[in-house]
Parts: sequence; structure tokens; C-alpha cells
Amino acid sequence: MIRLSQKVVETIVSQAFRDAGVRDEHVPFVVEGLLYASMRGIDSHGIRLGPTYLREIDGGRAVACPTLSWTERTPGVRCLDAGAALGMVAGRVAVRATEELAQRCGVGAVSVTNSNHFGAAGYYARTLAERGLVGIAMSNSDALVAPFGGTKPLWGTNPLSIAAPGAHGEIACLDMATSQTSYTKVRLAVRDQANVPRGWVYGQTGHTLEGIIEAGDISALAPLGGYKGHGLAMMVSVLCALLGNAPFDWDLTTLYEPPYDAPRKISHFFLGLDPRAFGHPNHVCGRVTELMNHVRNQPAASECSVRCPGDLEEEAMRDRSENGIPIPDDIFDWLRESDRDGTMASVRN
Amino acid sequence: MIRLSQKVVETIVSQAFRDAGVRDEHVPFVVEGLLYASMRGIDSHGIRLGPTYLREIDGGRAVACPTLSWTERTPGVRCLDAGAALGMVAGRVAVRATEELAQRCGVGAVSVTNSNHFGAAGYYARTLAERGLVGIAMSNSDALVAPFGGTKPLWGTNPLSIAAPGAHGEIACLDMATSQTSYTKVRLAVRDQANVPRGWVYGQTGHTLEGIIEAGDISALAPLGGYKGHGLAMMVSVLCALLGNAPFDWDLTTLYEPPYDAPRKISHFFLGLDPRAFGHPNHVCGRVTELMNHVRNQPAASECSVRCPGDLEEEAMRDRSENGIPIPDDIFDWLRESDRDGTMASVRN
Repeated sequence: MIRLSQKVVETIVSQAFRDAGVRDEHVPFVVEGLLYASMRGIDSHGIRLGPTYLREIDGGRAVACPTLSWTERTPGVRCLDAGAALGMVAGRVAVRATEELAQRCGVGAVSVTNSNHFGAAGYYARTLAERGLVGIAMSNSDALVAPFGGTKPLWGTNPLSIAAPGAHGEIACLDMATSQTSYTKVRLAVRDQANVPRGWVYGQTGHTLEGIIEAGDISALAPLGGYKGHGLAMMVSVLCALLGNAPFDWDLTTLYEPPYDAPRKISHFFLGLDPRAFGHPNHVCGRVTELMNHVRNQPAASECSVRCPGDLEEEAMRDRSENGIPIPDDIFDWLRESDRDGTMASVRN
Repeated sequence: MIRLSQKVVETIVSQAFRDAGVRDEHVPFVVEGLLYASMRGIDSHGIRLGPTYLREIDGGRAVACPTLSWTERTPGVRCLDAGAALGMVAGRVAVRATEELAQRCGVGAVSVTNSNHFGAAGYYARTLAERGLVGIAMSNSDALVAPFGGTKPLWGTNPLSIAAPGAHGEIACLDMATSQTSYTKVRLAVRDQANVPRGWVYGQTGHTLEGIIEAGDISALAPLGGYKGHGLAMMVSVLCALLGNAPFDWDLTTLYEPPYDAPRKISHFFLGLDPRAFGHPNHVCGRVTELMNHVRNQPAASECSVRCPGDLEEEAMRDRSENGIPIPDDIFDWLRESDRDGTMASVRN
């Protein structure tokens, strides 16, 4: 696969979103969000989403220059009607507000409604941690996951991310869907006729599938670990859609399918906690790093060492910083078409 | 098994904790906490803990009349040094503060350190929901759960509960350990030589055990669903022990073993969100109930219907309200010895 440097991708994709009418101040939110995932090996949430987001703008599902409407009733909470903004614009604006509230009250919560797909939840939690806060980010999404004991999709994969600042800029970042696995992994296993582990997907009768399976066998993704993931997915939905008075997961349209001209009304929830309010800001950072190192030094069941949440992503980032981001053919074609300034050529020469 | 009514158990256990020197105002916190679990079928966290808690007071690990020290640096956060209080005393006092902060700021967080075992996390999240808030409660605990890919216990079962108020007093309440299952369930399966499902426990080499197993085969509980539960356990630890500057899970002594004369220094974290701060208080309640009913009406994979978090507990509560709480022999003996006022006899006559 062709690899392109972060800088080249950033330049071309920024131009593409500016051309689509996204405000200059908002373009970095989107491009950094896509690159956040691409650089960390989370390709399903990386720059391959670029053309989809542009299609959403083109169709009217997403608004390039959204009207952002804030409501503040209490000192620790703000609500944002994102006016059908791109999710990464809504999310980054919400993160900034979360930070302000947490600095003011020690804890701050922001509810976002009328948004779109916001990419990797870790992008937001990690940004809060980079500002010295413990950050939490979550989003509801369209129904792909069956309830425990059910047969049909009900919940979105409803991702949840929690990040905490460590010492010397290190960050502990958990970023997980509340399903056992992602559709991307299931699709790859089905395509390659590889073994699908027990607990990943339910069949049409709601029983868990296992082994070599066909796409048509699958009814829904399974919730993480059974009823607990089912409960977590429901509570992400409560915090996002119910606090915000936004549509239920099962009333949302899907990212990759029409209608592209109707708003999706995705909702998010962000929380920030300021370690200073708890009295031990430096101690927290030092002990987060101590905790992570202790985890990594645990005796391991295989030749792989025990990892902290986010460690695999950091490994991918080191590789991609050095060797570039692997670009699938269709995305390479899109980048080449979007590259009006000859950025790719200038790098090659 | 003998069954006793909630009222009889409440009367005898209240007297036992008063006799142990627990303040009158704190006794209901403990007794309601134990009965919360016993009435809902969560027997591992119910009145069978009574003698253990009393032993902790007797040994000095827990303090019957604790000095509760509060620190407040910002309007939305308070920190409580619980002075080695019983966990249920510390927890309920913290819940009251969480409620005040959430009413003031829309969101409130309370960190508790120097506490003890706090029973069922749902007791606290549910109490917050009864006051109209979305409530979150968690605690760290002594190491029983291996990290994903590890071989030895590192994390506590680090329970997490999230509850939300529905219509007509109904409450959605998720209460889960971040392990795949509890040691209680594993012990019962081993005792009965029943099948242990894949994913519950790790063996001595860190590989997952399955089928009929012996107690000696087990090295650690497995984290929920693999690496995601590992990450959740770590983040519960960050929110409880690191924000509070309290001991790591792996430095905590265990509940049922000596030393009974040294403090355990368990830490908790509570969060409350006031739906009024988000602008839709009545709508939130109505839609929580709508959400729950929609879940229950989903097509089911078996003759059991699809359930919401907390539904099984509500079923147990209906049974136990009518038929009493099943009491194991050793707990019955304890209650009889503690029953100085003849409460049991007066009920039987």
C-alpha cells in the first residue's frame, strides 16, 4: 500500500474541506481528527472518512458553516445545538467548553445534539487530557448492536473514551466501542474466511456465531462481554441522547447510506475533571505514569507484553510518523484528485 | 433456606451496628445498603457482609464514629477523607454531597479516600437517581482481576454503576464489575463442578480456562470482554485512587482476611448530573422509561425476554418483598445471637 506523510495528507485534506466551505477555524478540527485516527492505526476512523464527510456536506446532511447554539443554565454544564455541524467540529468546540467549565467548577459537562459522526472518541478525551484534565467522551450512533438476549440491532456501537494525563506528556487513553468488536473486524474476517471468535456477532436467531461465517449469517454485533456491554451501550445512549433530548440510536440513519440530505442528529456527551480540584495535580500525573509502567511490567501470558490502553496506538504512531500513513487505493485516488496544488508531486521530487 | 422479612432483618441488624458504636444517624446508611443488595438478590453484597463489617469495626480497620474531613476547592467538586469509616457511611455521605454539588453546578463530583468496602455500587447511583439525577458510582478494590494478556491479579473488580431516573419512580440502573464475572459465581461453579464458560477466569499461565475446573487451576478473574474490561478497570482506578491520591488496587488488603486492625484505604468516586441543567428534566424521565420499554419489547433469542439493566434485581425484589430474604445458616445464627430484643420470636408468634 502507498504511504503518505502526515504533512502531505494534512495539506491536501485541509484544502478539500476548505473548498467544501468549512470555516478556516474549523478545518483543523476535522483534519486533526481524521489524522488522530490515521496516525494511530485506527484506519476505520481515519482519513478514509474524508470523502464520506464531504459527501455529507454536499448532500446537506452536514452543514459546512453551522450555527452553533449554546445554552448555559448552571455553572458546570453547557448544551450545544451543533446545527448539523460535522461531528469533529461540534466535538472540538464542545471540548473547549468542557475545559472552561472544568477550570471553573472542577468538573464540567457538555451535551451536544444535532451533530454528525465524530470519528474516534479518543480524539476528544485525549485532547482534554492534553490540557491536564481527566477527559471523558462518548457518542451515540445508529443501531448495529443487539441487546443481550436479543436478535436484532438496537444500540449503536456507542463509543466511550476516558483519558488521563501522565507525566512528561504521556497520556492514558481508553477508547472503546461498547460492542465486543467492530464491524470492520467482522467484515475482514468474513472476507478472509477467517475464524470469527465466539462473542463477536449474533446470528439471525440471536445465538452467538463462531468460526467461519458468511455475511448473510450475521444479524447484529454482540454487546461487550454480554449483558454488561448491553448496559453500557444503554447508558451511553442515556447520557448522549436522553440528557440532550435527541433521537434514540434506533432512529438514526447510517453513516454510509442515503439519505445524505437529511440531518442525522447524532448526540455526544463530554466530561472534564480538573485534578487541581482534587488537590493533587502533579501527583495525579506522576501516578498515572507509575500505574501505566506497573501494568506494562506485569508477567505476560505470551511473548507479547501486557499493554495499557492506547499503547498499540502509540506504536502505530511511531511507525507512521517515520514511514507515513498507508493509503488504500480509493483514498489515494481521492487525495490525488483533491491535490490541486501539486503537494504530492512536490514531495516526490 | 429460612426466609426473614426485610423488617425483621432491618431491626436486628440496626441494633447490631448501634451496639458496635456506629452513630445513630449512620446506622440506616449501613443497614439500607446491606438490604439494598439482599432485597435485589445480590446476596454477595447483602446482609451476609454484616458480620464482616462488624469484625472490621472490632479490629479497628473500620471506625464506628469516624472523623469525616471535607475539602472543597471549586464549586463542583468535594473531596472526603472518610477517616476509615464503613464504606456505606462514607458512600452515603458522599452521595448527599454529590447531590448538593449537582444542584448547584448542574454536575458534581465527589472523591472519597480512606474508606472501606462500600457494598453494591448500585446503592449509590440509584440513590442519586431517586433524587432525580443521573448518578455514577465506582470504587476501587483489592486485586483479583488479571490485566488483559497477563497472568496474575492486578485490578480490583472495580465496580461501576450508572443510574437514571425514569417516569413514575422507575429507575434504570446498571451495576457491574469490570471483570467478566464475580468470584462468587466462579466459586459456586467450582464447588458444583459445573461448566465454567470461556472468558471467566485465567489459569496460572494466563490462558483462559473453560469447562470443569478446580479452584487450584485459577490464577485470576478475567477482565470484561478482554482488553476493554482491562481498560475500564484501569480507568475506575484512575478516577478513584489517582484523583484521590489513594493506594493502587494491588496495594490494598482483602476484605475477608487479616489484618483487621489496619485501614484498607479504599477509594470511591461519585458523579451526579442534574437533568434540569440540560433543559429537559421531565422529558428525560419519560424517555428513560420509553427506552426501557422499547428494550424489553425487543425480539428475544430465547423464551426469556430481553431485559434492561436492573430488571432481574427488580424481579428479585418483588419476590423478597412478598416472601422474605433467604438467610444462609451462618447468617441466621448471627442474626439470632444479635437479636437481643426477641424480634424474631415476636414475628413468629
